[in-house]
Formats: sequence, structure tokens, C-alpha cells
Amino acid sequence: MMDQPRFFGAVEAGGTKFVVAIGNDRGEIVAQERFPTADPRSTLANAHAFLRQQAHAFGTLAAIGLASFGPVVLDKDSARYGFIARTPKAGWSDTDMVAALAREFRCPIGFDTDVNAAALAEHRWGAARDVRNLVYLTIGTGIGGGVIVDGVPIHGLMHPEIGHIHPRRHPLDNGFEGVCPFHGDCLEGVASGPAIVARSGAPLLQLDEAHPQWTIEADYLGQLCAQLVLTVSPQRIVMGGGVMSQARLFPLIRTRLLHWLGGYVDRSEILSDIDRYVVAPELGDDAGVCGALVLAMDALTAATEATSASMRNAGSSAKSAPRSPTSRSPR
Amino acid sequence: MMDQPRFFGAVEAGGTKFVVAIGNDRGEIVAQERFPTADPRSTLANAHAFLRQQAHAFGTLAAIGLASFGPVVLDKDSARYGFIARTPKAGWSDTDMVAALAREFRCPIGFDTDVNAAALAEHRWGAARDVRNLVYLTIGTGIGGGVIVDGVPIHGLMHPEIGHIHPRRHPLDNGFEGVCPFHGDCLEGVASGPAIVARSGAPLLQLDEAHPQWTIEADYLGQLCAQLVLTVSPQRIVMGGGVMSQARLFPLIRTRLLHWLGGYVDRSEILSDIDRYVVAPELGDDAGVCGALVLAMDALTAATEATSASMRNAGSSAKSAPRSPTSRSPR
Repeated sequence: MMDQPRFFGAVEAGGTKFVVAIGNDRGEIVAQERFPTADPRSTLANAHAFLRQQAHAFGTLAAIGLASFGPVVLDKDSARYGFIARTPKAGWSDTDMVAALAREFRCPIGFDTDVNAAALAEHRWGAARDVRNLVYLTIGTGIGGGVIVDGVPIHGLMHPEIGHIHPRRHPLDNGFEGVCPFHGDCLEGVASGPAIVARSGAPLLQLDEAHPQWTIEADYLGQLCAQLVLTVSPQRIVMGGGVMSQARLFPLIRTRLLHWLGGYVDRSEILSDIDRYVVAPELGDDAGVCGALVLAMDALTAATEATSASMRNAGSSAKSAPRSPTSRSPR
Repeated sequence: MMDQPRFFGAVEAGGTKFVVAIGNDRGEIVAQERFPTADPRSTLANAHAFLRQQAHAFGTLAAIGLASFGPVVLDKDSARYGFIARTPKAGWSDTDMVAALAREFRCPIGFDTDVNAAALAEHRWGAARDVRNLVYLTIGTGIGGGVIVDGVPIHGLMHPEIGHIHPRRHPLDNGFEGVCPFHGDCLEGVASGPAIVARSGAPLLQLDEAHPQWTIEADYLGQLCAQLVLTVSPQRIVMGGGVMSQARLFPLIRTRLLHWLGGYVDRSEILSDIDRYVVAPELGDDAGVCGALVLAMDALTAATEATSASMRNAGSSAKSAPRSPTSRSPR
């Protein structure tokens, strides 16, 4: 059994679309489907139907990973673990994302935010393979970030919600109120895709190089990067999402990051190698679903370790309990 | 031997004063001395002399912890591990803080920033005993912060330098340029003790309650807390340092934190229990030196575990190697 290829289920639950997939432990996607995010009942039913069908096709699923838009409840001691918390997305507040999956598939279920998952994927297989501390940012309809410290995503009280920090306003942008329903002119309110359209009447793609929007956007995102350098000290910042598909933004953002740091962080990675410090994702649009795959693999590892530990404990208190040597983790 | 009380050396290397102490693993300080920070050679010689003398008095030191002003090099793979990096403090750039201690005392040496150490101490013995994720802030001559994620301080590329983020400027404070030599009006430039004096002509203590300085200061520190909630998601924020000795600031800061979050983080710890979320240190002025004690204890634990692991490895390749069962870590 152990030498057979193992397959994992992956669900990227996004605010506008769901991506469901089957993959292996090398990050290879072998089946995939996507559909728009509608109401929770029908959308989750679609996801479950895909996994059920594929589980038959691939024998069984070793584990399932679920990477969800947020905010979500990640505290395993909470009765609401696996829920979407209060969200402006109509109908989705208090949706239990995990329980029905666990009931039906009876395998380990990994669960985290979509951005933490994408960060894990870029760490495992992408642009941050060689570091242990990174931030993954997505700049699109909203702005979000996943933070990995020493290989593990930050949860804490809830999870980061980086998009809602308040950057210092750019002098060319003082008249703009911002579009965030909570804060008006927080970062998401002034630098997300909808903010760009609200301010300039068109997405970045359609604005010529001389348009002040480029300057404004790069400044806000440079401030974001600077705040992150000073607060979580990442070894790399990976920036994806629809807005960042405009590759011209990268050098502008790097310049503003250096401006806001003002020479204070005396590290060659920043001072002389900034092109490798702020980078595009390598997994592109697949970062989210590959992240769900990592969540599945990590959930399986955690379950296996927990089983080994409880078997060791059982073994130490009752030496005669049957134990399989192959099920123990390597030493 | 194992049942004898164990003593640890602790050095808090601050920018204005050094505190050197001997303590036990319950955080009790049994000997202590403090002296002003002068040039590196004489200051470190003072610290070493104290430890040498006390090591004689207490038999031996099990380990030494060194909590230093920064920036410092924490990357153990770096040739400059244990150094102070480039610092505006005259004479101290590129000082090797750890090597001479290790040479003389031949025991495990723990090393981290003063603020990470203080955060560890408040986590072990103080105001954040019941959580695993916290931030410790000091607002004084400078502004610094230590970030603990799942019980471990963040290092990453370097370590956090939270004092140098750029808060949004307060409308009552637009004329003030700030005092940070690197950035002018970064947080440290507008909210540290020297900033308050530069702006108002006196420290907070001497300004009456109606002085706008209170409003300005609370707003900047409330922004800092909000950025931290959104970026590292702490379960508690502990605020110390000279400026925070004005207890009147706490309720003002909490109000501004709630303002800047704008209801977005839907957690009862913040929405209904903010008085227990943003708190004063319990260890007061001892947080730094107690933190050095934690660094020492953690260094001893790490060294013991490394020894156990290498003995296990040696044991598995050469079964006849002598092993003491008491030196193995518990399973």
C-alpha cells in the first residue's frame, strides 16, 4: 500500500470561483474543475460531488485540503473550527466548510485561508522554495496576505488580514475616498483592483505608462512591503493576483519599498538583491489549489504522527498491544 | 547533580544601560548589577567580570542569555551570528557580543533582541502566560517590538523593527517633522519619548490632560496596534517602556485601536475584552533581564536535546557506545 501513488483532494474556495482538484505529493494536478461561487449549499455540493466522483476514479483520497476565502476560524479548540466567520459575502457568514467533508470522506482534512495556502504552495514548490520565512500577497479584487514563519503559517488570534492596514496616503491621491466598506481608504480601499477602477475609470492594464495611477499604486504596495519587512521580517515577498499581472509594477514597487525603508534594514537581500526579494509567484493561478494540496498533505502527516504517538503511548503502558513497525514515523 | 538548583547568567544589553544578573529557572533573580552602556570593550568587560565572579559564588552557570539592543545578527548560519549590525550607537556597529562569552564560560549561550527576550519573559512569567502568540512593545527612547508566534520569537531575514513603520499622520501633528535620523516621521520619529519632548517641549508626564499630545500619541500607538493585529494576529499586546508608564495612555490607545480596525476583526477578545487584549507588562523593568534568563534556559534545553539526539544517533550506529539513561530527553 505505501508504495502506491497517493492522491489528495484540493478545494480552493475563492470569493468569486471555486477550484477543485486531485493532485499528488509532487504538486501535480491530475484532475481539475472550476465553477463560480454561488450560495454555500449548492457550491459546496458541487465541490463534494467532484471529490466523490474522483475518489472513485483514483481509488481513495489520502486527505483533503480546503483553502478558503476568509475570515475563517482556524482555532482547533473552537466549536466553530472550520467555519467562515462574519463576511460581507452574502450568505456565507457562519458556513461550516469542514464538517460535511470530514463526515463524508473520513480522511484527514486540512483547512486554512486561501492566502496562507498559496504561501505554503510557493514555499513548497514555487518562488520561495529556498527560504523558511515569506509573505505571499494577492492584489486583486481584494488584498490579502499569507505569512509563513519558519515554515508554518501564522494563525494567532485569527489570521492576518493584511489588506486592511492603513498606508500613508499618497499626495496625488488625497481626493479619493477609497472603496473598502469597513474602512474606506485602508490599503484594500485604495490599492485593490476595484479601487483602481473607481479612481481612474479603468483597470491598470488600460492606463498608459504616464498615468499617475501607476505611481500611486506602486507607492501603496511599496509601503505594504516595507511594513511587512519591519513587522514579520520575511526572507522573500511573493506578489500575485490580478493587479500584479502588470509586471511593470514590480520595479516600481521595489523602488518604493527601498524608499520607505530609508536604508534602515542593512541586509544585502534588500539593499543589493531586491529583484530576488520581491518576486512574482512561480505557480501563477495554481498557487491556491496547490496550496490546498499542501494543506491535505500536511493534514495527513499530522494525522499519521498523532497515530504513531498514540501507538507509542499505548505501547509504553501496555507492551503487549499489537504494533505495526511500518506505521511508525522514521527516526 | 540534576536535583541541585541550577543558575543562569543573564545580560540585558541596552542602548543606555546594561543589566547583568543571575537567576534560576523560576525567573527569580538572585544577584543583579547595572551600569551605563559605554564603549563596547569596557562595557562587555564589566559584564564578563560580574558573570565570572558570580559563577564562582554559585558553583557554575548552566547557561547564559544575552538580550541585546539591535539590530543584531540572529542567523546561526552566518559568520556574523551574535554580532550587533550597523547601528547609529557610536562604536557598537559590528561588535561580537557572543563569541567572547562562549570562549570564557564554555556553556550554552542564548542570544536575541532585547524586545524578543522581553516578549519571551512576559510569555513565560508575565502578562501573556496564557497565550502562544503575542507582541511585546516598548515605547521609550526608541520604539521596538518582539513578536512571538506559537511560543517562538520571529527572526526571519533579520528580526522585526516595528518602530520604523510609517503611521498615518495625525491632523493635529502635520507641522512636526519627526526625530528619526533614518526616516524623520516614522513611528519612532513621531511617538517615542524624544519625539514627544521635541514636539511639546516636555515629556508626557508634565503635560496636562487636555494637551493635544495625549491624543496624538494614543492615535499613533493605536495605529501600531492595529497594524500588528492585521499582520501578525497576536492574542495579546503587551506595552511597556518609559512612555507607557503613563497608565492614562492605555484606554486612549485601546479606543484608537478599535477605531482603526473599524469592526473588521470579529473576535470577542478585541470587541468585548480589549482591556485584557492591550495590557501593561507584569514584569515591569525586569522584563528584559528575565528575558535574558529565558534565552539562557532555552539555550540549555536546545543544547541538551542536541546532545541527546547525537547520542541516540551514535547509539544506533554503534550499539556499544556508553549512554546514560538520565541524559535522554523524556518521551
